[in-house]
Amino acid sequence: MSKPVTRREFLNLIAATGGVATVLGVGGALGLIPASTQASVPNLMPLNGQRRRVVVLGGGISGLTTAYELGKVGYDCTVLESSHRCGGRIMTVRHGDLIDEIGNPQICKFDDEPHLYFNCGAARLPSSHKNTLNYCKELGVELEMFINENKHALVHDPDLNGGKPMRNIDVSTNLKGFMAELMFKGFNNAELDQPFTDDEAAKLLAVIRQFGDLDEDGRYSGSLRNGYASGGFISDPVQKEMIHVRDLLKANTGLLRSVLLENEGETAPMLMQPIGGMDNIIKGFLRKLEGKVEYHAMVMAVHDHGDQIDVTYDQNGQRLTITADYVFNCIPSHLMVGIENNFPEEYRSAMKSIRRGEAFKGAFQMKQRFWENEEIYGGITWTNQPIRQIWYPFHGLLKQKGVMLAAYDYGGGSGFMRMTHDERIEAMLSQGEKIHPQYREMAEHGITIAWHRMNHMLGCSARWGARTPENERNYQILQQPAGRHYMIGDQISRKSAWMESAIQSAHWAMAHMDQRVRAEAGA
Amino acid sequence: MSKPVTRREFLNLIAATGGVATVLGVGGALGLIPASTQASVPNLMPLNGQRRRVVVLGGGISGLTTAYELGKVGYDCTVLESSHRCGGRIMTVRHGDLIDEIGNPQICKFDDEPHLYFNCGAARLPSSHKNTLNYCKELGVELEMFINENKHALVHDPDLNGGKPMRNIDVSTNLKGFMAELMFKGFNNAELDQPFTDDEAAKLLAVIRQFGDLDEDGRYSGSLRNGYASGGFISDPVQKEMIHVRDLLKANTGLLRSVLLENEGETAPMLMQPIGGMDNIIKGFLRKLEGKVEYHAMVMAVHDHGDQIDVTYDQNGQRLTITADYVFNCIPSHLMVGIENNFPEEYRSAMKSIRRGEAFKGAFQMKQRFWENEEIYGGITWTNQPIRQIWYPFHGLLKQKGVMLAAYDYGGGSGFMRMTHDERIEAMLSQGEKIHPQYREMAEHGITIAWHRMNHMLGCSARWGARTPENERNYQILQQPAGRHYMIGDQISRKSAWMESAIQSAHWAMAHMDQRVRAEAGA
Repeated sequence: MSKPVTRREFLNLIAATGGVATVLGVGGALGLIPASTQASVPNLMPLNGQRRRVVVLGGGISGLTTAYELGKVGYDCTVLESSHRCGGRIMTVRHGDLIDEIGNPQICKFDDEPHLYFNCGAARLPSSHKNTLNYCKELGVELEMFINENKHALVHDPDLNGGKPMRNIDVSTNLKGFMAELMFKGFNNAELDQPFTDDEAAKLLAVIRQFGDLDEDGRYSGSLRNGYASGGFISDPVQKEMIHVRDLLKANTGLLRSVLLENEGETAPMLMQPIGGMDNIIKGFLRKLEGKVEYHAMVMAVHDHGDQIDVTYDQNGQRLTITADYVFNCIPSHLMVGIENNFPEEYRSAMKSIRRGEAFKGAFQMKQRFWENEEIYGGITWTNQPIRQIWYPFHGLLKQKGVMLAAYDYGGGSGFMRMTHDERIEAMLSQGEKIHPQYREMAEHGITIAWHRMNHMLGCSARWGARTPENERNYQILQQPAGRHYMIGDQISRKSAWMESAIQSAHWAMAHMDQRVRAEAGA
Repeated sequence: MSKPVTRREFLNLIAATGGVATVLGVGGALGLIPASTQASVPNLMPLNGQRRRVVVLGGGISGLTTAYELGKVGYDCTVLESSHRCGGRIMTVRHGDLIDEIGNPQICKFDDEPHLYFNCGAARLPSSHKNTLNYCKELGVELEMFINENKHALVHDPDLNGGKPMRNIDVSTNLKGFMAELMFKGFNNAELDQPFTDDEAAKLLAVIRQFGDLDEDGRYSGSLRNGYASGGFISDPVQKEMIHVRDLLKANTGLLRSVLLENEGETAPMLMQPIGGMDNIIKGFLRKLEGKVEYHAMVMAVHDHGDQIDVTYDQNGQRLTITADYVFNCIPSHLMVGIENNFPEEYRSAMKSIRRGEAFKGAFQMKQRFWENEEIYGGITWTNQPIRQIWYPFHGLLKQKGVMLAAYDYGGGSGFMRMTHDERIEAMLSQGEKIHPQYREMAEHGITIAWHRMNHMLGCSARWGARTPENERNYQILQQPAGRHYMIGDQISRKSAWMESAIQSAHWAMAHMDQRVRAEAGA
């Protein structure tokens, strides 16, 4: 979508295509379209005293979902978690917590207060993710709003406004004004050969004018929508000077996209977060799984014997084996590849094919919530520096301190991954102070997390890559069980990196197993 | 802005104007524009034991601000409030509260729970309203987000989609796609005679494509941005069918405007609300004004004697008079007109000139938060029925019940004003159930408030009308004191109906008085 075209190419395009003509037409079924996500929790057959043993490999949210749901209907479940904590990429760091990055272990030094935490991985819960929400409700996890988009937050690009940050709303209001002028003219073309009625044409023009705050002649000359240069309450509001589109176009295209688009797709619904940290969802599951989770349990081997399946693991120097009916496995595929198993070759090969993302996040505790003095309450500031984003915490509103996301590099391959902790901190400070002059002075107790170096994970979410026939085949193979072994997690979904995907993957696999159990039981 | 034009008029317009040409240009001063609202609290001279008596007429937020600030520097203040409560149009109703509408008194029957309240008047606190926020901070009023815009909320128009409600995001995504196609074509016109460089043109096209999710050829054919028809996690996402612009144009223009525009102007900054009800701000002030507020104190006369000013009031049948140095008066101007006074004729005449708005709000307690099952969390549903809006409470998320705004008619003159309480309730039910079928069954304990009939107020916010020379003169007259008497409140501001305006008005008047006191003191 973002492929740039030259002016010449553009003219050819216009010549070659009919424009809006094909968009016009009558009808289409317009019923209130159902919510995108339906509750997917399977209707499992209760065992009623029959014994079924299940081993869950990995205490990520898909593994915990499995142990929780199967436990409800009578399965005997054990979760083997290799690290000291459950949750995987659902990880909240607070005062005294260990960040277990290989070669860069850190103890978090944030003040010991409930609002001073950092969600190192999962940080946003779209309200359309029904299954995740349902578990929050069921497990008593209290939620609050997460502010993703805030038009009062900033945009920074060295080429824009001489490198001085601008408010999102100043960029977007002016860009929209210009775009509306284009539409106003473009409509001239379109309506000549389109069967708009006068009434439709008038409506469309009215909407276009309102979209951009154009004057009666269809001109944009600034707006009061992006606030006032001064006044507004006791004295008259003074309109801010119009910003010329040419000046806005100095910014990077991706940055303009971030400004102009509101929340879309996964972030279009309301976003939420558990009050006090994302890992409250994990804690909610663990309250229901007491005695069922083994920590520091490193899986060494998985052997499917046809009528049963063995899992061998190492715990505190002891080698232990559990014989089970089924295994559900959310160990990252690229780590599972290195664990002894007797899976079919095509299954092993499919596991090997999945690449992992490299994501980096950094955060500072800020001595003062200086952004609130600049009328920024929550939301994201965009920059085209390597830190990419700054997230202002909304929670803790008007308190003294807050923990701010200071870098979020989800593209992989950036310099952050290869830096020492101190170099990362310095990069975050020097880039942050280009946006907020007081940044360096305010920042304390910085933490950094490179997910592809995190112990027991060594990677962020699965990246399946382009929908090639080969990738597609591998996906199909891994979604199906290998004997009594099910791969689960967001890694086995069409939309990795979301909790909802991990949960739905677990539901899918349990439903599949349930059919087998029903068949065995002659049900 | 919303004046419709016919196709013929439109063609003339296009012919008559040069389009985007004038928008293009180099430069303009683009510094990070300051926040629109500055803290306006005046630097008052402390009295240091000198005695100064002030009477504040009316316990609205401007009156309380005055008593609070003057009290801090040693003034002896008394607030005379005619009703049983302070706050004026800052009014939160909970279990057992009286709604003091003349001819329609109601006792609120909501369940007695903290999240089951209704803000009958002021309901949104823009984060740019610095003075209001500062008082929240100073008075220990805890705030939370208010969700104004929610693209998952609904749009309803009998002419749109056969009267079946649609999600806001389905309308806006499809409308934007069409608009982007128009721009894509319109750019052709524009760039021919504009000095865009190839690079600028490419950027602009890229931004336009991304704005509307157009394909490589600049065509819009639906999007995944408004969610999926199905799938998305375990199975592939299925794109929703494109909705044709002609079908969207069936809706009322004003409704389309509400859909397409995000929060703008006063609601563009983050919006907040005090946790537990807007009147917590009033309670915050009252904690600082103990013993200084007289309730049921009806002002009968104000007489300025040049060197002092007398206020006579009736309290529980007693006629009392206070002699003061200054009076600050936030009694609604149209009521003050009927109270005996010796103000100059032009001042009285200016008071008479201000019209008042008629606003109507209604609310139901809902037995279940059925909207959350439809993935609506907070925000506004727009309809072109007389109820105009439905507001879904975000607070109380995932609890059983919630109080929903069921009608908000701010236009005045609607039928609601002239209906009995029962007729209003029935209108709210029958219109609400066109949007949510289960509405009638879920609704209980409805309340209705017609502000122009509320006791001691008889009107909503001041409506100054067009900026005619006469109105302008009246504004100037009323902003200045009449002798020792200051009119205050949002009624004496350029933007009535906001708490910020009322507060700034009080600040302005106190600063004016402070200059006089300093002069008297020879300071």
